[in-house]
Amino acid sequence: MEDTRSAQLGKVTLQRLALELGLSTATVSLALRDSPVVAEITRLRVQEAARDRGYVANRSAAALRTARTNIVGVGLHDIVNPSFTELLAAIEDALSAAGKTVLLGVSQEDVARQTRTLGTLAEYRPDAFIVSPAAHTRVEDLKALAATGIAVVQVTREIEGSGFDFAGSDDRAGVALGVTHLVELGHRRIGMIGGFSAISTGRKRLAGYQAGLKAAGIPFDPALVMEGPGHREEGRRAMMRLLALEEPPTAAVSFNDLSAFGALMGLQAAGLTAGRDFSLVGYDDIAEAALWHPSLTTVHTFIPEYGRAAAQLALARMADLSRPVERVELPPRLVVRDTTSAPVPVKRRPL
Amino acid sequence: MEDTRSAQLGKVTLQRLALELGLSTATVSLALRDSPVVAEITRLRVQEAARDRGYVANRSAAALRTARTNIVGVGLHDIVNPSFTELLAAIEDALSAAGKTVLLGVSQEDVARQTRTLGTLAEYRPDAFIVSPAAHTRVEDLKALAATGIAVVQVTREIEGSGFDFAGSDDRAGVALGVTHLVELGHRRIGMIGGFSAISTGRKRLAGYQAGLKAAGIPFDPALVMEGPGHREEGRRAMMRLLALEEPPTAAVSFNDLSAFGALMGLQAAGLTAGRDFSLVGYDDIAEAALWHPSLTTVHTFIPEYGRAAAQLALARMADLSRPVERVELPPRLVVRDTTSAPVPVKRRPL
Repeated sequence: MEDTRSAQLGKVTLQRLALELGLSTATVSLALRDSPVVAEITRLRVQEAARDRGYVANRSAAALRTARTNIVGVGLHDIVNPSFTELLAAIEDALSAAGKTVLLGVSQEDVARQTRTLGTLAEYRPDAFIVSPAAHTRVEDLKALAATGIAVVQVTREIEGSGFDFAGSDDRAGVALGVTHLVELGHRRIGMIGGFSAISTGRKRLAGYQAGLKAAGIPFDPALVMEGPGHREEGRRAMMRLLALEEPPTAAVSFNDLSAFGALMGLQAAGLTAGRDFSLVGYDDIAEAALWHPSLTTVHTFIPEYGRAAAQLALARMADLSRPVERVELPPRLVVRDTTSAPVPVKRRPL
Repeated sequence: MEDTRSAQLGKVTLQRLALELGLSTATVSLALRDSPVVAEITRLRVQEAARDRGYVANRSAAALRTARTNIVGVGLHDIVNPSFTELLAAIEDALSAAGKTVLLGVSQEDVARQTRTLGTLAEYRPDAFIVSPAAHTRVEDLKALAATGIAVVQVTREIEGSGFDFAGSDDRAGVALGVTHLVELGHRRIGMIGGFSAISTGRKRLAGYQAGLKAAGIPFDPALVMEGPGHREEGRRAMMRLLALEEPPTAAVSFNDLSAFGALMGLQAAGLTAGRDFSLVGYDDIAEAALWHPSLTTVHTFIPEYGRAAAQLALARMADLSRPVERVELPPRLVVRDTTSAPVPVKRRPL
């Protein structure tokens, strides 16, 4: 009798039990094995339910090893940039729809912290990791995560040549769009605010800046590149430094919108009006860009779209670890608002 | 021989093994029990190390049940506000120093998402939860987390009367400081921007606004309270609505700095200058407040300090679940910058 019932329930029993109890399959299988990791009350509940339904556990370790935990670990290098909130919301929505729960680790651009946080998550065998790697992450760091059969997908940033799926925006094309827009307005001396070469987005956006200049026949002047992390404080400082140059630019593109907001603050502090005295292009088009006065001309990068793409890549990868590597790089779009106009000569100001 | 060696190593063996291997004690104990939750490579490594050192596991379930996982689950209702990044960094630093790893769940003000995320974390038995509860969280929701013996501490926000430890700022006193500052400058018609009554911080900050008015003998006018979530977009909208009133205020306090930044954008869009045409006080004093031009007068709330306090409360609570409930409410401090001055009559403007 016992055998017949378990044969009827067949392979789906663990999943069915989990579904009925509102628990993850990992918890149910751990509870059935009397694991101390599962709270006693839950263990008893699972074991009782299993008894009631005549469940006979398949104790083959191999079968248990392939059980889904329905957890996806998301590792972001930063959460202060609202673009990551948009990204996280899109990833979560797509994964929730597929029955997954997201746990988040934040590296704050610190590889050691990233290793510790993702390592802890890895001990509990998430089905997948979606990672925006901290600066200086090595290929080996990502490979260590994938070594135990966990799907790994990169989002926004990538470790080039790592051989992991990637979803993000075509940053080179995106920043070039901004430069071309400024050139078409008549600017020839154009700065770049924020970004640094230790991260793929920094390299790609700088390459886009250089490509845009080159297409217009404007020589690259490294003095006009203000490298730095993409946040407001740095953007403000970078704008102050650009304005203090012997021959300041009349316009600038930015690594991201946060840098651009900081640059707008710098312009205000210097008594200049963006879109009249100085032209500025952001990058990302987060919601705040349209709120500023003047509103920020920027490059829209379809963050929710590539967030959803990253989630889909993770689901596809966990279904088939051997599928070919896939890259989703969405083409951005220029959004012209009020911070860009034809150039007027900017006098050097004492700062 | 085997017995002697294990007796020598005594009770600390599991901890010592974990330390030597750079793994959590939970992972080591799971690996020794051949749990499929632990990656095979790690299991073999642990088992080999245990063999080499002549380790004999104490397989008493009770002993394992009390093993620390060294994970602390942090549940935040929001991460878009940079104040939460400051908070998270402080919590992580304090817990890292105590050998804990932080895993983060974000509810995005959604109780169902909070239940799912924290429930998944709970299955892995973190040592503690530090939670800023989503609006409409009930006492039972927190009690369910604590039911399995996990320490629960509230940070920033609280469910009043829940009987859980709390660390945050004295929000009532803080907002009253801002109102008193405006009254001393000569303002009598003072608005309140942002905040809502479904959250403890909303109720306390509104109470602080009312207390400040009352102390100055100014009657409370509900038409001057613009309730809403504490973000930029809402702050901008609230300022537009205040300016459009038949008899607009000459000043306002804000639920948080983000609302105040939005309100500054609203003033700019209306052609008004903060600190000259309208006085504005923020709340929190996040780094961005000093970057604005004019820089934001605000109330400093010692976020890293109460973040560290929350971490300490969690460590104390996990060491002794029966200790008396503790509340840490830090008194905020007014930081006067450039957005506040004596009132000038503001004419109603067509918007």
